[in-house]
Amino acid sequence: MGRCQLAPAFFVVASPPMLPRLTQAQAPLTREIEVMNEQGVFETVSIPAERPLTIYVDKHELITLMTLGAHPEWLVLGYLRNQRLVLHANEVESITVDWEAGEDGAGVAAVKTRQGLADLPIRTEHRVVTTGCGQGSVFGGLMDEIDALCVPEATISQSRLYALLNAIRLQESTYKSAGSVHGCALFAGERMQLFVEDVGRHNAIDTIAGWMWMQDHRADPDSIFYTTGRLTSEMVMKSAQMGVAIVVSRSGITQMGFDLAQRLSLCTIGRAINKHFLCYTQSERLIRDIQNS
Amino acid sequence: MGRCQLAPAFFVVASPPMLPRLTQAQAPLTREIEVMNEQGVFETVSIPAERPLTIYVDKHELITLMTLGAHPEWLVLGYLRNQRLVLHANEVESITVDWEAGEDGAGVAAVKTRQGLADLPIRTEHRVVTTGCGQGSVFGGLMDEIDALCVPEATISQSRLYALLNAIRLQESTYKSAGSVHGCALFAGERMQLFVEDVGRHNAIDTIAGWMWMQDHRADPDSIFYTTGRLTSEMVMKSAQMGVAIVVSRSGITQMGFDLAQRLSLCTIGRAINKHFLCYTQSERLIRDIQNS
Repeated sequence: MGRCQLAPAFFVVASPPMLPRLTQAQAPLTREIEVMNEQGVFETVSIPAERPLTIYVDKHELITLMTLGAHPEWLVLGYLRNQRLVLHANEVESITVDWEAGEDGAGVAAVKTRQGLADLPIRTEHRVVTTGCGQGSVFGGLMDEIDALCVPEATISQSRLYALLNAIRLQESTYKSAGSVHGCALFAGERMQLFVEDVGRHNAIDTIAGWMWMQDHRADPDSIFYTTGRLTSEMVMKSAQMGVAIVVSRSGITQMGFDLAQRLSLCTIGRAINKHFLCYTQSERLIRDIQNS
Repeated sequence: MGRCQLAPAFFVVASPPMLPRLTQAQAPLTREIEVMNEQGVFETVSIPAERPLTIYVDKHELITLMTLGAHPEWLVLGYLRNQRLVLHANEVESITVDWEAGEDGAGVAAVKTRQGLADLPIRTEHRVVTTGCGQGSVFGGLMDEIDALCVPEATISQSRLYALLNAIRLQESTYKSAGSVHGCALFAGERMQLFVEDVGRHNAIDTIAGWMWMQDHRADPDSIFYTTGRLTSEMVMKSAQMGVAIVVSRSGITQMGFDLAQRLSLCTIGRAINKHFLCYTQSERLIRDIQNS
């Protein structure tokens, strides 16, 4: 249970692949506002955007996400994937995002599937509200499939971990300019493949999941997932779903995140800033190639 | 729109009040685990609990929340309130929480209403996934009622704000022992009435909302709500729903949180640590009684 040598089944897609067609909707990520500080002085600060995006699947309204709006199409694809509403990228023909199409200026993401999602009402019947900082919504059955997941037998060296944390430190970000967003990144070896920010940290990981599907390759067994957010059950679960065996967080871990990581044989590392960290699970997979002074 | 002199209608309850009967279910809030640090040394750290709590309303399964578990009955009551599934506390006869009653060791909260919630399926039909750090789920209609909300014309002095931040700093907490939780507090004047932590910050505010209903009094017009979490649209909305006009956060604000606070005439103060803060909205209501050096 948990571990396997093969890449997970989710990455075995039909060949030749039929990837969804995606728009590339753009919207400003920050806005300047005037605020008063403790000296009574007014100053201008940036705040992150937060905009509603209503997802329609074959004209059936599914849900409204609140998002920063950096990569809405990947977010929608990854949301459908991580909620298990779509099992393969090639089930989706296109995702069309229009930030101005909805009522009251809300954004709309129109998902067109190739053959319809016949059991969509059934799949969305059970709601589990997960931790996040909010009350994340995972449509039922997610936890039922834990034992079917397997993650690769990857290791990470301490020097590679430090290189990764340094890359995060140097990354230009909305967080640096406006704060109040969570960041996620996917690394292959020491190379950062993608860095995503969102007002919701589950949106950030869903966006990475969507991007991974669009790359049409098996998950790199060497993949590492980094998040600024806490390692809750949902974050651990989604990492495993993406076939990533090593998860690094700037924050800590909750009890269910810990239990689930143990069950899935995921290596979880938290409180990772500069040269500090705590390895919560699978510490034998963290290769100590640096002698601490 | 937004402001009013009267307490909001939500606090006008039937007299004599018939408050719900609540159990007082207990469960450990932290657990010790062994972790490996960057020196390769194993040490014991505390992590916060995170447990599923499935809510049944009159035997109808509503949702599963992931929670720390400190005050599950107030959480459930506040969740039903903030989701607008219950409009008055006296609609609920009892809430019975049993941490061991569910499948796979999940907790169960059995809500018994006095007269049934006839339109529950309709009220739960539309889902909006809000920011949080996760994807919070707000059953539809929440935003529809903005213009019906009114908040009191409260002010806050800078010295009172500093006293409040000092009280938070001194508060014993799961955060101090285990990290990875969000805290919320409700103040009346400088007096902390309630301090709540949870793995989900929306759970924390919902718990406060549930507690307020159990106090059976009008909202103190002098109330101040404090949160460690960001001021997203949902946090601002829930504060207004509770009749609280001044909201203080250790974190920042998002664009929709800002827009909504302006629309509701809520005074929002963020980045509030020690003697620093930024007042985002309604800065004329922050009385500067301290001369900064």
